Amino acid sequence: MQQVFHEIKISTNGQGLYDFTDQTISWIDDQKINNGILNINILHTSASLVIQENADPDVLYDLKNFFDKLAPMDNKLYKHTTEGKDDMPAHIKSALTNNHFTLSIKNKKLILGTWQGLYLFEHRLEKKIRTLSHHLIGD
Amino acid sequence: MQQVFHEIKISTNGQGLYDFTDQTISWIDDQKINNGILNINILHTSASLVIQENADPDVLYDLKNFFDKLAPMDNKLYKHTTEGKDDMPAHIKSALTNNHFTLSIKNKKLILGTWQGLYLFEHRLEKKIRTLSHHLIGD
Amino acid sequence: MQQVFHEIKISTNGQGLYDFTDQTISWIDDQKINNGILNINILHTSASLVIQENADPDVLYDLKNFFDKLAPMDNKLYKHTTEGKDDMPAHIKSALTNNHFTLSIKNKKLILGTWQGLYLFEHRLEKKIRTLSHHLIGD
Repeated sequence: MQQVFHEIKISTNGQGLYDFTDQTISWIDDQKINNGILNINILHTSASLVIQENADPDVLYDLKNFFDKLAPMDNKLYKHTTEGKDDMPAHIKSALTNNHFTLSIKNKKLILGTWQGLYLFEHRLEKKIRTLSHHLIGD
Repeated sequence: MQQVFHEIKISTNGQGLYDFTDQTISWIDDQKINNGILNINILHTSASLVIQENADPDVLYDLKNFFDKLAPMDNKLYKHTTEGKDDMPAHIKSALTNNHFTLSIKNKKLILGTWQGLYLFEHRLEKKIRTLSHHLIGD
Repeated sequence: MQQVFHEIKISTNGQGLYDFTDQTISWIDDQKINNGILNINILHTSASLVIQENADPDVLYDLKNFFDKLAPMDNKLYKHTTEGKDDMPAHIKSALTNNHFTLSIKNKKLILGTWQGLYLFEHRLEKKIRTLSHHLIGD
């Protein structure tokens, strides 16, 4: 049983969903582990992770729009307003989605459904660089 | 350390919560691993996973009802409408709940609370066959 | 590869977020595993887990408030009312957040972002003692 650690950096340019499936798969391809668990953690609380449909971009549009309406950028709704009108909604959207994925690798292939992609969900308005910890454990 | 992979298929007949705890436990019973991690991934983005109370069926009714009101089946709310009025709400409900569970096995027993059950949460109206990847790693 | 199991008990005194990061780190410090996966499961369905910002307490206030408005304690909204007005909202809030965390340990250190803390999110009004299963697998 071996373990490998890695970080993927993702540059975001405002709110939305950023597909990083290919970056993760490309890293797995370079490892010597054929079967194992891949644990991905996002090291931030104002951006999050979702596994979603990678076919129709309208799905990503509607998702972003749904969360914007559910947790509006309106300072009157929140006490925590010092970091900008998008910060508290970002924490809420983060709590409603995922901080981490635990995925399985079988014969060097990530187990995902045909239409599933791995997305970073950016909730802040400004440009950011986000860090995703990757930890692979297996044989 | 050993690893075993398996798929459980669940037939769904419309929206609601389907308990698959017994199927998972029965599969664990057949394995030679006493202690380890069980990673369960649903290979779809219009159905999801929740761990919920298995005592009062009214809890499942209220849960389904809550999510229906939160993400209504109303085409006017969404751009992605080509796959039916239930599809975009399904993706939203999926983002709000889980795509995967990571559970612990100790002395052949799944670590779960007394009232916890494992549920597939179907968000589509039509009959479906859903695939749950099971990956057990341990001794 | 070794495995260790442990339970952390947390006393809660009404709804809110309880930081247990230090308890988890202190337990990791006592183990002989340097690198591995830590799987934390909450054995209840009316309290849940969130990774959130540990800097400004207003974030925790706003989070609690958001979830209270999203799933109000109003018996008229639910069929499951026999366990109190806070019970069905508790199950809903639990479904919207996490039942478990899967975290990575590298060189004896929990991989977390600078501002990330591990929180138990209590959704019941009465005092409770909550159990968090900890399972560490690694070298």
